[in-house]
Amino acid sequence: MEHKVKVVDIDSFKHRVIMNTTECGKLGMHSSDRVMIVSKTNTVVAILETSDTYVNEGEVSLYLKTTEELKVAKDDLVRIEPTDRPTSVEYIKKKMKGKELDKAEIKTIVEDITSGLISDVELSAYVTATFIHGMNMRETTDLAEAMVATGEIIEFSKGPIFDYHSIGGSPGNKITLVVVPIVAASGMLIPKTSSRAVSSACGTADIMETICNITLDVNEIREQTETIGGTLAWGGGVNIAPADDIIIRAEYPLAIDPYSQVLASVMAKKRGGGAEFLLMDIPTGPNTKMEDMEPARELARDFSELGKRLGRKVECAITYGGKPVGRTIGPALEIKEAMEFMEGKEVPDSFSSKSLGIAGILLEMGGKAPTGMGKKLAKEIVDDGRALKKFMEIVVAQGGDPNLTSDNLPMGKYQVEVLSKRDGYINSIHNKKIVKIARAAGCPQDKGAGILFLQKSGRVEVGQPLMVLYSNNEKRLEDARMLANTLEPMEIEGMLKERYADYHSV
Amino acid sequence: MEHKVKVVDIDSFKHRVIMNTTECGKLGMHSSDRVMIVSKTNTVVAILETSDTYVNEGEVSLYLKTTEELKVAKDDLVRIEPTDRPTSVEYIKKKMKGKELDKAEIKTIVEDITSGLISDVELSAYVTATFIHGMNMRETTDLAEAMVATGEIIEFSKGPIFDYHSIGGSPGNKITLVVVPIVAASGMLIPKTSSRAVSSACGTADIMETICNITLDVNEIREQTETIGGTLAWGGGVNIAPADDIIIRAEYPLAIDPYSQVLASVMAKKRGGGAEFLLMDIPTGPNTKMEDMEPARELARDFSELGKRLGRKVECAITYGGKPVGRTIGPALEIKEAMEFMEGKEVPDSFSSKSLGIAGILLEMGGKAPTGMGKKLAKEIVDDGRALKKFMEIVVAQGGDPNLTSDNLPMGKYQVEVLSKRDGYINSIHNKKIVKIARAAGCPQDKGAGILFLQKSGRVEVGQPLMVLYSNNEKRLEDARMLANTLEPMEIEGMLKERYADYHSV
Repeated sequence: MEHKVKVVDIDSFKHRVIMNTTECGKLGMHSSDRVMIVSKTNTVVAILETSDTYVNEGEVSLYLKTTEELKVAKDDLVRIEPTDRPTSVEYIKKKMKGKELDKAEIKTIVEDITSGLISDVELSAYVTATFIHGMNMRETTDLAEAMVATGEIIEFSKGPIFDYHSIGGSPGNKITLVVVPIVAASGMLIPKTSSRAVSSACGTADIMETICNITLDVNEIREQTETIGGTLAWGGGVNIAPADDIIIRAEYPLAIDPYSQVLASVMAKKRGGGAEFLLMDIPTGPNTKMEDMEPARELARDFSELGKRLGRKVECAITYGGKPVGRTIGPALEIKEAMEFMEGKEVPDSFSSKSLGIAGILLEMGGKAPTGMGKKLAKEIVDDGRALKKFMEIVVAQGGDPNLTSDNLPMGKYQVEVLSKRDGYINSIHNKKIVKIARAAGCPQDKGAGILFLQKSGRVEVGQPLMVLYSNNEKRLEDARMLANTLEPMEIEGMLKERYADYHSV
Repeated sequence: MEHKVKVVDIDSFKHRVIMNTTECGKLGMHSSDRVMIVSKTNTVVAILETSDTYVNEGEVSLYLKTTEELKVAKDDLVRIEPTDRPTSVEYIKKKMKGKELDKAEIKTIVEDITSGLISDVELSAYVTATFIHGMNMRETTDLAEAMVATGEIIEFSKGPIFDYHSIGGSPGNKITLVVVPIVAASGMLIPKTSSRAVSSACGTADIMETICNITLDVNEIREQTETIGGTLAWGGGVNIAPADDIIIRAEYPLAIDPYSQVLASVMAKKRGGGAEFLLMDIPTGPNTKMEDMEPARELARDFSELGKRLGRKVECAITYGGKPVGRTIGPALEIKEAMEFMEGKEVPDSFSSKSLGIAGILLEMGGKAPTGMGKKLAKEIVDDGRALKKFMEIVVAQGGDPNLTSDNLPMGKYQVEVLSKRDGYINSIHNKKIVKIARAAGCPQDKGAGILFLQKSGRVEVGQPLMVLYSNNEKRLEDARMLANTLEPMEIEGMLKERYADYHSV
């Protein structure tokens, strides 16, 4: 049937078409059916929506993406034909029934997800079914391979390629800013891409964006890595394993990460990025993603096994993540701390020790240091200034200011101290509360926003400043201060933990 | 924050708001988050969508429903505030984890589904999780009660109220057109509402729409039932257990019916409709919803148990549904057959026997006939013309023509015969193929479209007409004819079923 085009100027990831509800009833078509739309130059399959008011019979309304692909404009004619439900929906139902999916079925699901043929309802059913029934290691391997195959792949002419990835959950984890320069300075290749924050205070991409361009395409990442040894880029600038980004949209509202999907997504992103050797950082401790050691070890084993099946060499470091790393949270503040470390200034051991430890393992994986000696070599590369030099090379290559130092970073205009409400010992710092406060202050978009811890352990007295909050917005700073006073992210306790008495006081 | 309103003139069942992607990034808000929108007169919670192109920072785009509820127009200002994910999402996750939900949790889920607070992704997760993990009888009872409580309820001043429901799957099942008049003619009250076709050729609502109004509200159903004993109305005209209609939208793309959801939905619709006594028809046989007897018996037991828990008296009839009922499929054709029966003309036993059997059980449930004598009484009510008289009373009460007979129905303008391709015996008639052909001819929207079987069993010869197809559209009629020739919905076989020989022919 010929239909006259109307245009909805909303951008949509999927091809969508709105048709008149009554007309669809006559044609036996339902909302969420797939229809083929044929123009003079092209054909697309779109998901059908219906409306009583927006379109009349004989009209169809197309979203921007679809009009562009069909090369049609308002009042052009297109032909609409019903088409079958994609076969991937049958495979999703197979997983709903608890059955194992074969390689071809997984490939079809990933292809249909990537091409936008799968509706939100179907995608959610897929995510829910894999959350409930899981996938075995064979399925997870096929899933990772299908995710790699449906996106860009970085092909390096040199090698070997190393990479590092943290599963996250540990605020202030700016170690990537130090690890990549150390590793690259040793002569190894590390094309690091990072994510932006979803629920954390800031991701490495949000941090680096403060001082340089982070949107590098596949060729830029390859060239910069082959020239100067590494990148500190944003993963969203490339189209590696794009199915992941789509699947995350269905995971986010449910706040679930199906285990096999996490494994497959991480490995697909890293494999598509060209990594042959991969070090995984698994922060563990209270209020992280992995609260206990046993699940962390299981994850480490599964990452290694999956790596092996994908022909990659994977090592995992289970690290302590129960408190923020270092003394800063927030884009500019974290760069300042990382640069101070590389400039030879004093930084907390939680930061220097973790950075050097992780960099050291990578140096050992790359044969630059014998086993057990990597951390020492990493320290030498920081101490003799090579790490700072390489960091600045990367920043400048990505368009940053060559005169950047830890002293000229764009810190938040407004600051306020948070004071201790009691005498006692700092018992713990609550990761999730800290993240809430940092976000209230403006992280990750306000590059000057964040938190500086003045003390992270030991004895404090009532009225003593515990931390300084930063923001470029006075109102947000005040919100963050109030939140800090309410949440009390630093737990301060006296030596007396409890009182017990078996008489009634008068 | 204050935002300037733009209007999307698309009707949406849910409150939806589109905000600028970059601005949402700054505010830490994500697509599918819930936000509160505050106007001068009202507040609504809407699901957030993001767009780079459609709205600028400081603007929000609202769908029609939302502008109406907030009483705002283009360029008005509204205040946007982030708000938490509804608690029902936590309960959906609990079911995803295989846990039993308590009464309050189920109530919250149903309320949030009904109010549109649950996104498609979340709704699909709920449907998928109940499909996989199921619900026990206690949960199913709570689900049915919550569905009743979130919709309209018909309160009758007379009683008792009887109802009949078929789970469907048996084409040509026009028995409701005869059962309701018989039961009402006996002095019982039967406020029957029916559905339209989703995937079948036509529902009872689609059929009755051919000759009268079917959209009756709660008061009209009550009044007509109390006055003349019954209705033949459309279930969509009332707002009983509206959660069901929303849940179906998520079930349709996946083509799944979670078992507990089917039980709860049927019972909620019937309970909200006021039924105290309910007869369930469970068609069983090849190519129906219940292919085997054992699952049909289990369904019957579960309906009865659920009825008991809801304080209703439920009886179930497991009927044969492996072939179409009667000799017609299609709105006008089915009315013609039903009226012919009530006018005293000859109709196939598959139709008369099922109608009288079902009506008979209802007459026995209502104490109008002793056990075992209901069918006989039902036949008397048809034979002495009381059924036809009551049918016409109902049709006229719903605005139909008092001069209607089986001879002046609006049959399809074009007809074509489908001929047998071989000599042999009619072995079976394939329900699902018949439905496809009827829909190709124009059912359920084309009231004159459908199929008339000339013979349903016994011997036929090559070239002998098997059925007549009807349509008001020549092109569709030809499509249906071609489909009939390809699908061969009537399986015709010789007496020789197979040849076996253990030598090779020359």
